[in-house]
Amino acid sequence: MPALTTYRTPVQEGWVDYNGHLRDAYYLLIFSYATDALMERIGLDADSRGQSGHSLFTLEAHINYLHEVKLGTEVWVQTQIVGFDKKRLHVYHSLHRVGFDEALAASEQMLLHVDLAGPKSAPFGERSVALLQGLREAQRDLPPAEFVGRVMRLPG
Amino acid sequence: MPALTTYRTPVQEGWVDYNGHLRDAYYLLIFSYATDALMERIGLDADSRGQSGHSLFTLEAHINYLHEVKLGTEVWVQTQIVGFDKKRLHVYHSLHRVGFDEALAASEQMLLHVDLAGPKSAPFGERSVALLQGLREAQRDLPPAEFVGRVMRLPG
Repeated sequence: MPALTTYRTPVQEGWVDYNGHLRDAYYLLIFSYATDALMERIGLDADSRGQSGHSLFTLEAHINYLHEVKLGTEVWVQTQIVGFDKKRLHVYHSLHRVGFDEALAASEQMLLHVDLAGPKSAPFGERSVALLQGLREAQRDLPPAEFVGRVMRLPG
Repeated sequence: MPALTTYRTPVQEGWVDYNGHLRDAYYLLIFSYATDALMERIGLDADSRGQSGHSLFTLEAHINYLHEVKLGTEVWVQTQIVGFDKKRLHVYHSLHRVGFDEALAASEQMLLHVDLAGPKSAPFGERSVALLQGLREAQRDLPPAEFVGRVMRLPG
């Protein structure tokens, strides 16, 4: 099974710099929308229409920019479950386009399950845990995510 | 000397989620504008008005989300030079607001100096090197950046 495709979009006009290339922050916006889509896959709310009363907050993100992306390019995000515990979900998003095998960017993220009534952190409900286990099981044979666990430093 | 203040803005309407809180990707957009401002401090171009023909591309970023930020809050970015070599600049941005001592978020970033004529990576020019050395020297007594060199992992 391929990695889960969580989001697909053309690169929009408000997202590019004066050279017509996707600006660094907007790669992360695309990954943010992918996280919203992932939430719905595990029974959480990505917006105020939801009824679960729970959501995911981003605690931490690491992003590697691998290739430039031009205005209008159709891109999509694949999402891999790296791990999870009672309250936290560790995911790996990668950005892709047609006709290009390498990822355009990759982002490792740590997400916290939150009860919006607080808001305060809260354990995942049974249904979310089952859905997460199902996703992880389906991804068992995927190669390990390339840019996980990186430490940033100058070379040499 | 305090860290360099590179950018200041109120949190704008297009940047918040349905709860009125700054969305994860827009913290990085604010840091991206701070990098633009830093470029101008070291003789590079943040946009097409510039004449240097050189710019900084983001290779990698790590961001820690520490506190929520509401619509309309006036925030600013402080920037610390972690290090640099011939072509790379390692920086640390932190986000702040009035009346709150802790940082709201912090982002370690690795930036690459690029000759826009290629575009291809290129050594910093003498003037940029001198300006970077001056910034680093002025920041010699700052405490070490807290969220530098982090590895993301589930606790335990």
